[in-house]
Amino acid sequence: MSTEPAPLLALDLTGTFAFGLNGALTAVRAARLDVVGVVVLGMITALGGGVIRDVLIDSLPPAAFLDWRYYTLAAAGGLLAFAVSRHLRRLEPAITVLDAVGLSTFAVIGASKALDAGLAVVPAMLLGVITAVGGGTIRDTLVGRIPTVLRTGLYAIPALAGAAVTVATTETGLYGLPAALGAAVCFLIRMLGLHFGINAPEPPETRPSGGGTRRHK
Amino acid sequence: MSTEPAPLLALDLTGTFAFGLNGALTAVRAARLDVVGVVVLGMITALGGGVIRDVLIDSLPPAAFLDWRYYTLAAAGGLLAFAVSRHLRRLEPAITVLDAVGLSTFAVIGASKALDAGLAVVPAMLLGVITAVGGGTIRDTLVGRIPTVLRTGLYAIPALAGAAVTVATTETGLYGLPAALGAAVCFLIRMLGLHFGINAPEPPETRPSGGGTRRHK
Amino acid sequence: MSTEPAPLLALDLTGTFAFGLNGALTAVRAARLDVVGVVVLGMITALGGGVIRDVLIDSLPPAAFLDWRYYTLAAAGGLLAFAVSRHLRRLEPAITVLDAVGLSTFAVIGASKALDAGLAVVPAMLLGVITAVGGGTIRDTLVGRIPTVLRTGLYAIPALAGAAVTVATTETGLYGLPAALGAAVCFLIRMLGLHFGINAPEPPETRPSGGGTRRHK
Repeated sequence: MSTEPAPLLALDLTGTFAFGLNGALTAVRAARLDVVGVVVLGMITALGGGVIRDVLIDSLPPAAFLDWRYYTLAAAGGLLAFAVSRHLRRLEPAITVLDAVGLSTFAVIGASKALDAGLAVVPAMLLGVITAVGGGTIRDTLVGRIPTVLRTGLYAIPALAGAAVTVATTETGLYGLPAALGAAVCFLIRMLGLHFGINAPEPPETRPSGGGTRRHK
Repeated sequence: MSTEPAPLLALDLTGTFAFGLNGALTAVRAARLDVVGVVVLGMITALGGGVIRDVLIDSLPPAAFLDWRYYTLAAAGGLLAFAVSRHLRRLEPAITVLDAVGLSTFAVIGASKALDAGLAVVPAMLLGVITAVGGGTIRDTLVGRIPTVLRTGLYAIPALAGAAVTVATTETGLYGLPAALGAAVCFLIRMLGLHFGINAPEPPETRPSGGGTRRHK
Repeated sequence: MSTEPAPLLALDLTGTFAFGLNGALTAVRAARLDVVGVVVLGMITALGGGVIRDVLIDSLPPAAFLDWRYYTLAAAGGLLAFAVSRHLRRLEPAITVLDAVGLSTFAVIGASKALDAGLAVVPAMLLGVITAVGGGTIRDTLVGRIPTVLRTGLYAIPALAGAAVTVATTETGLYGLPAALGAAVCFLIRMLGLHFGINAPEPPETRPSGGGTRRHK
């Protein structure tokens, strides 16, 4: 079982379920998969980022394999997604919000666990981002999509902001606050970005060869 | 050198060679690669699942890098595949059987090593599946295919069944039996599934956007 | 901070900056990405191989997260690439040379660190190759390209040659020389291969199904 403080654990489990549900729904939308494929992708989305983080901070075996709540919630999210997948079109807004919830909670957890493991502030922020975007990136790669983190400027940036708030408040001793504040900042930026369609600047006058990307088919 | 008991080690080396050969042949079939690419993909298929497992159970460096028999057999399988690749069409049945052999042995080894590392029964079963499907999943991703584990319902399920039998028989103290029995169960389910074309249920009325998948070209 | 000897560290930081710049430019060429995507891919190319190596030799957290110079140089390379990306066509030769520089330095560093970690000579050579090609392989997979290491025979081979020279000279006690010599051998073979368009042998009469590869669109 996990030994992390209760507010962090609650955030972590919330994010795991949200990403399990979101990842499986995204999988259904992107590729025609059977129930095994949908649940597998839900679990990968929910657990992938945390597993990468735990490998990098040498906290092995990863929490995802030590605490039954992680893999159970991830699988439950995936199964629920399969059950409701016939209503996919109406679920689009929910997919987006669930994704922002997972992104926000995991950015905070990742940064927080990295600080606990003794990493400096910048690597801790990077690990927050990796935790937040890792699972979805593996999922996108497996179903043949360019990962969201590469296509959407306001995806890594809110995660980085949430991780930065977590690191800053933790370093200044505001214990207990970081989790909620960091997650709220990330969630807000992500939702504002989605609402207003904001993106990061693109390279000027690029002429992609198109030979290798799946986006220009 | 490895310190695992002889029956397990024999299974492990058999699976390594089978996956080396299978992975390289699959690579030749999927994409026009030179000899280096073919051997690299054979080695990744043969060693990838075990390496992921060893990282997750914190048994580092991975067995694949400590025992020369693993990388030698994997490379030998890849080279043999390159040598016989002109007879690819006649080798189709062999590719399928070799894949089922690797899947069966690796599901048993993975679950067994995870139990030895102190993991609980469900995570041990998950690690059996990860060991069995990991290498092939990396190979498929590198050559741009949707991984078999996502497309084919009866691929993860036999691996899970083999891992479950291994865990159940090990936990009840039937030492020596688990390896053979678990592998046999996985192999049988996989071959029956292939023979009768059985698949897991698909989501109802899904309309994939097609924008991100390579299967609908 | 890193504790590796000065010549190795200098090589490592040079390779990190070269791969950060190269990876980001390759990303701009392959897919239309915003500044976040370009920098992320530059950092993945620059740091990915070393992170995989450090995971496999159990040197965790990876050097890339412990020494600020690694992630700073990787990010700087990515930002510089974004800034100059409007001159992409004129930069083609530079991209190729930067790639060969990263390949050469990382093959030497990877083999050297693996020997230090107690691995035998063949696994140490394999880890040299993995360090050299790992980051670029992740980058290519994320943007949907078949990785260079699979397509180009004279990519893994120079890395293997550089790693072999490093291992041979280290084992025979020629301390100090290995780094420069191994890197020079790898760089020369790679540049000669590019200049003369040399490739490794391909399988005879292969008829790829095309169903899974992105190269035959």
